[in-house]
Amino acid sequence: MTMLEKLMPKSDDFFSDFEAQAATVVEGAKLLKLLLEDFTDVPRKCQAIKDVEHKADDITHRAFARLHTQFITPFDRAEIHRLLSRIDDVLDLADAAAERLGLYDIDQVLPEARDLAAVLVAQALKMEEAVKGLRNMKRDPGTILEACKEMNVLENQADHLTRTTMAKLFKRGNDPLTVIKWKEIIDLIETATDRAEDVANVIEGVVLEHA
Amino acid sequence: MTMLEKLMPKSDDFFSDFEAQAATVVEGAKLLKLLLEDFTDVPRKCQAIKDVEHKADDITHRAFARLHTQFITPFDRAEIHRLLSRIDDVLDLADAAAERLGLYDIDQVLPEARDLAAVLVAQALKMEEAVKGLRNMKRDPGTILEACKEMNVLENQADHLTRTTMAKLFKRGNDPLTVIKWKEIIDLIETATDRAEDVANVIEGVVLEHA
Amino acid sequence: MTMLEKLMPKSDDFFSDFEAQAATVVEGAKLLKLLLEDFTDVPRKCQAIKDVEHKADDITHRAFARLHTQFITPFDRAEIHRLLSRIDDVLDLADAAAERLGLYDIDQVLPEARDLAAVLVAQALKMEEAVKGLRNMKRDPGTILEACKEMNVLENQADHLTRTTMAKLFKRGNDPLTVIKWKEIIDLIETATDRAEDVANVIEGVVLEHA
Repeated sequence: MTMLEKLMPKSDDFFSDFEAQAATVVEGAKLLKLLLEDFTDVPRKCQAIKDVEHKADDITHRAFARLHTQFITPFDRAEIHRLLSRIDDVLDLADAAAERLGLYDIDQVLPEARDLAAVLVAQALKMEEAVKGLRNMKRDPGTILEACKEMNVLENQADHLTRTTMAKLFKRGNDPLTVIKWKEIIDLIETATDRAEDVANVIEGVVLEHA
Repeated sequence: MTMLEKLMPKSDDFFSDFEAQAATVVEGAKLLKLLLEDFTDVPRKCQAIKDVEHKADDITHRAFARLHTQFITPFDRAEIHRLLSRIDDVLDLADAAAERLGLYDIDQVLPEARDLAAVLVAQALKMEEAVKGLRNMKRDPGTILEACKEMNVLENQADHLTRTTMAKLFKRGNDPLTVIKWKEIIDLIETATDRAEDVANVIEGVVLEHA
Repeated sequence: MTMLEKLMPKSDDFFSDFEAQAATVVEGAKLLKLLLEDFTDVPRKCQAIKDVEHKADDITHRAFARLHTQFITPFDRAEIHRLLSRIDDVLDLADAAAERLGLYDIDQVLPEARDLAAVLVAQALKMEEAVKGLRNMKRDPGTILEACKEMNVLENQADHLTRTTMAKLFKRGNDPLTVIKWKEIIDLIETATDRAEDVANVIEGVVLEHA
């Protein structure tokens, strides 16, 4: 990269990065939900999620490199870093859950895991909405803030669902190894919704500061 | 908020936020300790902790909004963000532990969990002391640094207690599901003491830089 | 510290701190590998790792104090903070794994845990290489970036090893308590390799920005 290129303000690229990242999160979350709803052909479905995750890694890595070399950024460098990282985390965790579904010799899907994946999909769609709004945050901050609020509400739902699911697992007199496996998978999906809430909090801060 | 309000320096409000947050941590930690000491009327006691946690969320959310809109802050914006987040985490984790105590069909309290909650209460009281000192940090930095040091010592105690408790749980030939439940609850309280140590580290940095 | 000392640029000290930290990580990771390869004389070997970890804590604590009091730093203060924290985390986690090996009444070492510790040692050596390069990053950025890339590759290996190990543990019809113990130990070592990857990412960013 020449000095001239470094100096050229192409700060809009970051908005494209956020949007590309958010699109992969929606895609990955939907694939995870489908896997849980129809638990057949599991290795192929897991690989499809892994492919989306690799695509997302490339987007994130390119954006980080640009963040470190570009002089002009649309808002605070630390906030962009946080936003890229947290969006990336959401998909990483969804993929980690899918991998375990593929590896842990699972006979039967825990029905509550499907509900949890559905919450993650709903949250990912709201994330996409919020992220798309960033480009024009001065014109319409209200829509972004509304989407962030709904991401928070969905995280609370995921949290509640996780706890009641674990309570049920403990009560059913389940086989302990089955409980350990599902606890890990459920925790991964729930942590994905936590990271999505972090995304909402970062976006909310950016909007409050700049819009 | 008008531009004039934005420009008005009301940076002292952040000290009030930290103090209000710390007070809720003390309150929540004490309620968790009481729940573990007298494990009756559990749903009501869990709800009381949840209520404190909601109050804390409101304080934190308001402070974040102010952080993004106010021009003058008493110290580095990133440090204030970190401090608000980490104090908030402590209570969130104490509440998460309480929730599981309410949901997981627990017959008998693990005695070591009480000791761990007692360490958390001691740490919360030191946190309150440290946070109250911030307002006058130039006058008396020594008291703050001493409180931070004691928070670190208490975290080490919690860490040690957690590991020996887990070792005991594994040895007693306990029912695996009981072990999984208590491992989660113990880990949550121990992570609360970790976040309190993070609070101490942030405060120590602020004092070294500004006092 | 006098105002004059505060003003004196001794920014090179941070490079010495990173190098001293990285050396303790190599030392600790090697001791963990040795413990897993020859599981005798366990309390003494665990104590040796704990001693290294205490030495590392002193280095980190001194560096943090300097970071808050020194005016001139070789690169962005937030990046130095992140780098010191993440390197410190790697050894903390290796030590946490060792402690559990000492406490959990373990008869027989899981062979895969040795492979995982070997990956951590390889990563620690690459970390040392990358960190040593920072002092002259303008002269030879390529070597640093290469080491960072290999740290990422090693983290992927650790990740894959962890998942297949857990799958095996679940399949072997193992005793649930044994599974819980090894899951925790394996997760701790794997998280150590995650933090090492974070170190690589921070270093990569610093090099892209400054070299």
